[in-house]
Amino acid sequence: MRIVVLAGGIGGARFLRGLKQAAPDADITVIGNTGDDIHLFGLKVCPDLDTVMYTLGDGINEEQGWGRADETFHLKEELAAYGVGPEWFGLGDRDFATHIVRTQMISAGYPLSAVTEALCDRWKPGVRLLPMTDDRVETHVAVELDGERKAVHFQEYWVRLRASVPAEAVVPVGAEQAKPAPGVLEAIAEADVILFPPSNPVVSVGTILAVPGIREAIADAGVPVVGLSPIVGDAPVRGMADKVLAAVGVESTAAAVAEHYGSGLLDGWLVDTVDADAVTRVKAAGILCRAVPLMMTDVDAAAQMAREALTLAEEVREA
Amino acid sequence: MRIVVLAGGIGGARFLRGLKQAAPDADITVIGNTGDDIHLFGLKVCPDLDTVMYTLGDGINEEQGWGRADETFHLKEELAAYGVGPEWFGLGDRDFATHIVRTQMISAGYPLSAVTEALCDRWKPGVRLLPMTDDRVETHVAVELDGERKAVHFQEYWVRLRASVPAEAVVPVGAEQAKPAPGVLEAIAEADVILFPPSNPVVSVGTILAVPGIREAIADAGVPVVGLSPIVGDAPVRGMADKVLAAVGVESTAAAVAEHYGSGLLDGWLVDTVDADAVTRVKAAGILCRAVPLMMTDVDAAAQMAREALTLAEEVREA
Repeated sequence: MRIVVLAGGIGGARFLRGLKQAAPDADITVIGNTGDDIHLFGLKVCPDLDTVMYTLGDGINEEQGWGRADETFHLKEELAAYGVGPEWFGLGDRDFATHIVRTQMISAGYPLSAVTEALCDRWKPGVRLLPMTDDRVETHVAVELDGERKAVHFQEYWVRLRASVPAEAVVPVGAEQAKPAPGVLEAIAEADVILFPPSNPVVSVGTILAVPGIREAIADAGVPVVGLSPIVGDAPVRGMADKVLAAVGVESTAAAVAEHYGSGLLDGWLVDTVDADAVTRVKAAGILCRAVPLMMTDVDAAAQMAREALTLAEEVREA
Repeated sequence: MRIVVLAGGIGGARFLRGLKQAAPDADITVIGNTGDDIHLFGLKVCPDLDTVMYTLGDGINEEQGWGRADETFHLKEELAAYGVGPEWFGLGDRDFATHIVRTQMISAGYPLSAVTEALCDRWKPGVRLLPMTDDRVETHVAVELDGERKAVHFQEYWVRLRASVPAEAVVPVGAEQAKPAPGVLEAIAEADVILFPPSNPVVSVGTILAVPGIREAIADAGVPVVGLSPIVGDAPVRGMADKVLAAVGVESTAAAVAEHYGSGLLDGWLVDTVDADAVTRVKAAGILCRAVPLMMTDVDAAAQMAREALTLAEEVREA
């Protein structure tokens, strides 16, 4: 079975770990969000790709969900001593190596997809990890700060400001000109199932879908497309998805997110058991729906969610 | 009193620490060797400048004489795990910050002299540290390896090969086209005394002198030029200076090094007490000479050497 998964960071990575356990023989291709990539200290940092790679490669800091296990922060301390910022982005000594290797390869002329493949040679994530594009896409968030309207990098909004001001708009700058990375459209065309993990529908999955060709390829693939709600009980399971949902005019409920994707794209949708009353509304939108536990408390719970998603995909196929 | 010192790495840095103690009110300008600079992992590394900066700024690893105190090597471990080398150059997590800040500033268009000044803003070495040039000079060493003659970067010869094969030639590539960094010629012209610390006469002081204009400015300054022998009892005090002296046809003795500099450049020369019989030969070459203890066992010993050098400079002036 060939499965394509559109993944953001922590939620996507943890779901993928469950999926690997649930479908050990599946051929899994992950299309990773690169809209939150950022240049820091002259280095190219790809937070979502790295979170997937570290999580599936057993190098992740389990508690925080991002960054490396057994990490130290001496380099960052020294940068601060030099007065060189930003200080709000947490790069550890081990993590820096990934960004140094990536930056060196990119400077040598390799596209991000080739770099990602090379990094995965070490981590052996057990999936094929593709960036959504080799082109530069940077998600910017329009906010009002100190009485002025301005656009900030997504990471600045998310990490420095902790989404403490309303997002007035979310713009994946560069997406319109971007092309899907090599292998992305082919993987979608050859997939048996396409999954949207409980990742952020705006700044993770939404950014991937903003790369011209990807949304159309998924809609035209003719295979079940099943998603899992990142909203449980009207609040994001983790992160601050509600802040950016408001920017695109979508209410923070499991049903509204399904409608936002729409039946033109989505065939099946899993909501949490606490949102069981959303099932009727989602079905009314032409999307198959079921309520199951959606809290990824551990790998087994994530695996059970993956099994439910694959089961729902089977039902879509038979419907 | 304005003192100009031409410095390499460890020997130069330790001598400078002594000089600061011996002449606390002096205005000291250090012209640092950049011929052993190297690009590693996409970063510009300046080993000699950093050794001076860390040593005088109390950040040095005292035992090894280079690199940072309280250092960890997690980033380097990770680079090795990625299969990205070289592994023979020891960059620590704290040290990496210096190279990242430097590389970022250079990419932004700042010359090395401005970058060095910015780095020293933090370290406050108590001297004015100038790179010999803002241009690229790279010391290469011609060797026979595996039956083939080839040129290797100085660091590869020194650190990887540990000078285990004869150096057939030492070439400061790019020196002929290099210009002294801003402030270098001015500092020499305004100096009251010019000192050559017990640094390597070929790959440290020799490289600085290879930048067109510097040797001439020193010879024409009309002030005492006094050096300290890096060779004690026919062997280098530290390092492998004998290997590169052979490449330029100079025997590894205190007297031969003085003759190599020559009376056109050098006015005074200190040899170690074990080399007292070299004094006559050095004097015969037209260079004032005295035998004093030259082992920098601690800062006090280095300070005493600096006092002896300044005293000899006074005698040159009165002669």
